[in-house]
Formats: sequence, C-alpha cells, structure tokens
Amino acid sequence: MSDVPSVKGAWEAKIVTLFPEAFPGTLGLSLTGKALNEGLWRLTPIDLRTFGEGKHRNVDDTPAGGGAGMVLRPDIVDRALRVARGGTPTDPADWPVIYLSPRGRPFDQATAQRLSRTRGITLLCGRFEGVDQRVLDAHQVEEISLGDYVLTGGEIAAQALIDATVRLIPRVLGNQASTEEESFSDHLLEHPQYTKPASWAGRDIPDILLSGHHGKIADWRRAMAERLTKERRPDLWRAFCAAHGRDPNEDREL
Amino acid sequence: MSDVPSVKGAWEAKIVTLFPEAFPGTLGLSLTGKALNEGLWRLTPIDLRTFGEGKHRNVDDTPAGGGAGMVLRPDIVDRALRVARGGTPTDPADWPVIYLSPRGRPFDQATAQRLSRTRGITLLCGRFEGVDQRVLDAHQVEEISLGDYVLTGGEIAAQALIDATVRLIPRVLGNQASTEEESFSDHLLEHPQYTKPASWAGRDIPDILLSGHHGKIADWRRAMAERLTKERRPDLWRAFCAAHGRDPNEDREL
Repeated sequence: MSDVPSVKGAWEAKIVTLFPEAFPGTLGLSLTGKALNEGLWRLTPIDLRTFGEGKHRNVDDTPAGGGAGMVLRPDIVDRALRVARGGTPTDPADWPVIYLSPRGRPFDQATAQRLSRTRGITLLCGRFEGVDQRVLDAHQVEEISLGDYVLTGGEIAAQALIDATVRLIPRVLGNQASTEEESFSDHLLEHPQYTKPASWAGRDIPDILLSGHHGKIADWRRAMAERLTKERRPDLWRAFCAAHGRDPNEDREL
Repeated sequence: MSDVPSVKGAWEAKIVTLFPEAFPGTLGLSLTGKALNEGLWRLTPIDLRTFGEGKHRNVDDTPAGGGAGMVLRPDIVDRALRVARGGTPTDPADWPVIYLSPRGRPFDQATAQRLSRTRGITLLCGRFEGVDQRVLDAHQVEEISLGDYVLTGGEIAAQALIDATVRLIPRVLGNQASTEEESFSDHLLEHPQYTKPASWAGRDIPDILLSGHHGKIADWRRAMAERLTKERRPDLWRAFCAAHGRDPNEDREL
C-alpha cells in the first residue's frame, strides 16, 4: 500500500532457514503483523537451501564420529551467514548472530529487552542434529535456548524470540497493553485477572477489585503476585527477594 | 488423499484461539507436517471468536479493579472449553487442559514426554492481559509457561509445545534423529557436532572424531557434554550430579 509509512532504520530480523515459507507465520497476525505491515520492523527470510551443493542442493552430512541424524555443513552455513551479514553492523552488540539451540543460554525477558535495543538480529534455524561447531565459532554466534525442551527445528523458536522482542519496540503494542506491569518486569509473576460478569457460575470477582479503592487494589495485586511467585517459582522468588532486600522465608499474609 | 493411512485414536491437540489461521503454521512443515498428513497426530483449532457476544462477537472486557489491556471473559472461554471437551476423557491425566501463560510451570522435556503419553490436550491461547481466573479454576486448567519471557499471544507458544510433544510420538521422527541421545534426556546439554569437510577455513574436526575408536569418541562426547553443561548451565549440572551421585565441584578433565 502506498500510504503505509516506511520507517527508516526499522529493527530487522534476518532468518537463515530451510523453511522460509514458515515466515512470517503467526508473526504476520495480530499486533506483530500490523506493526510489520506498518514498517515498524522487518523480516527477511534467507533460504539456506539455495546455498547447498549439487543437484539436490545438499546442506548437511553425517556427524563426524558417527551417530544418528545429520549436521548442517560449516561451509554452506558460512555462505548464508555472509549474505545475511551484508549491510549490517559488524559489532555483535549492534547486530547479534543467534543460533537457536537447547545448548544456548536460556532466553528471558532481559534478553528480549536487549535484543529490542539492537539494530537487528540474524537468526540461524537448526534442523536435524545441529550445526557444525566451527561455523558457530567463526561467526561468533550467540547460542540462545528457548527453554529446556527439544524442538524439531529452530523456526518456531525463532518466531517466539522475535515475538517477545518485537513487542518491546516502541509503538508496536500501541495502547493494547503495558509492558511495564507485566510478568518478569519486576521478577514477579502477574497477579490473577478478572473481568465481567461480576458473578459467574457461582464464582465471584474478589470484593476488593470492585471496591474502587485504588491503593488497596494495588496492594492486593502485589500481594497476590508475591504469593503466586513464592508458590510456583521459588527460583524467581529468591531473585526478587535478593533484588529488594527481602527475606525469602518471611510470612507476609494479607 | 485416499491412500493416507488413518490412525485410530491418534494423539490430538485441540486449540482454543482467536487466530485459528495460525495453525498448523510451521507445524504443517517438515516432519511434524508429514506426520500430520499421515494421521499420526491431529490438530483441531477452535475459533474462540465464534463464542463471543453481540454484533462484534466480543470475547473480552476491561480488568476488574482497573489497569491496561483486556481480559478474556470467563463465560465465553467456558463455552469454548465445553465444546473442546466433547469426546475427550474427563481425567486431566488423560487429556489435560492447558493455558499457556508466563505464570505457569516452566515447560520442559519431562513435560513434553508426559504430554506425548496422553490421548490428547486442549490448549487455550491467551491474548491481551490474560484470562479470567475463575474459568481457569472451574476447568482445572494446568498453566504452563514456555519460558521467562512475555509473548504477544499463546499461539506461538502452543506451536512450540505441540512440536516438542509430537516429535516424541512413535514414528513421527522416523529415523531422522534419536530422541534418546539428545539434550536433556540425561540432564546434559548436547556435545558439539562436526561434519564434512574435515578441514574448513583453517579449522579442523577434532582428531578423535576421525579416529574410528567408538569407545574413545563416546568418552570424548560425554566429557564435552559435561563440560558444556557445567560452564553454561550450573543449574542443570547440579541436577545431573545429584542424579548420578557426582560432586558438582569435581574437576575431571580430559
């Protein structure tokens, strides 16, 4: 559309993948899709297959030393990463090259915030058993893990990482939500939410939320967030207490 | 296709979502897509919007007690979950109802294994600020978090959870990979991988991997996996040591 604003220097995700058709996928819907259409961020899939060799454009080979599966070849991946590098800053702080792998550092909200402040990222999506270690070393690739589970490939992980990052870019979320109040912005899980009807199936909205006392509501929500975090995520609770000089074993009931 | 085998009682994911068009998405590609086409698992999106009220099929309202964003209404979500429940076992152990939320228990490989042994799952994808707590309580909904980050909605998280689960269903991966040797199956991150060429850009495959000594190769890989886990994930390393009666501070070099 000719009236779509073009945002100069918009944040960009380049994605090296064997499945370029997976993109934008879900990222093309809802608020991330709207922001993509408005040019607030850019998405550039790079088809790894086109860098393959021979009639079948082979990109992988058997693991050195034996074992199941196939490993992406360093020379093939190198060619794709060199193309991706075109026109991007060379400092990894400005434009990280990321390989999504269960071996990486766990992705978290702080990493999403860091990535949202770069000029863009290049994501390498693995398939099969993995990627030759030498090309990861040569390109100073940062390994990031979505969590302690194994996926068939890096494409869904890339979409999750991009979604979490893009929504932190100014104007992407609009007024739909506050990124300040939400989970993890203060090391706490979010308090329970309620909406109309006030009474449903014999279950009522807690009175305090309908009281109109903003101070008491804020206190209640904070207490619920703390209790939930303490119950469900002792690890986050300890981090919160350490950051706020609190005793993790204190008993502070409503 | 008439010659596609129909697998009776195949594992099924029902997904309550405002974006049914997001599915199968990436799950329709590669091995998960092939298995879906072969009937080894099933995917049933349920459009939450059709249960909405009024001319605009509203599904959400403002949070009780104030605040940014919108909350999915309990009565609307209840209607969708009742439809999803049709024909499924009532025991949550056989057919869990899952809400993907950063407030949930962290998803991990053990959870993927557990889910792959159910008859199916119902996934509720959130959007906006969340879902009314009462409907989560009423349906004994299990809250699962993909990781400590915030996504625009639950659809990508649902795809990640389904991908990690479906690949553990017998015959889905075929001979493409071993789910036994991979990351987390033994609390360890996976060792580095190498493939041809033996020498690339001045970097060689470690000699031992080309030695043909299977025992030594296995020892090397194990030592590398342990070292990597110790360096990158002290939390996993402690869990591994606890499970194997090892001292997490030992210094066992190659």
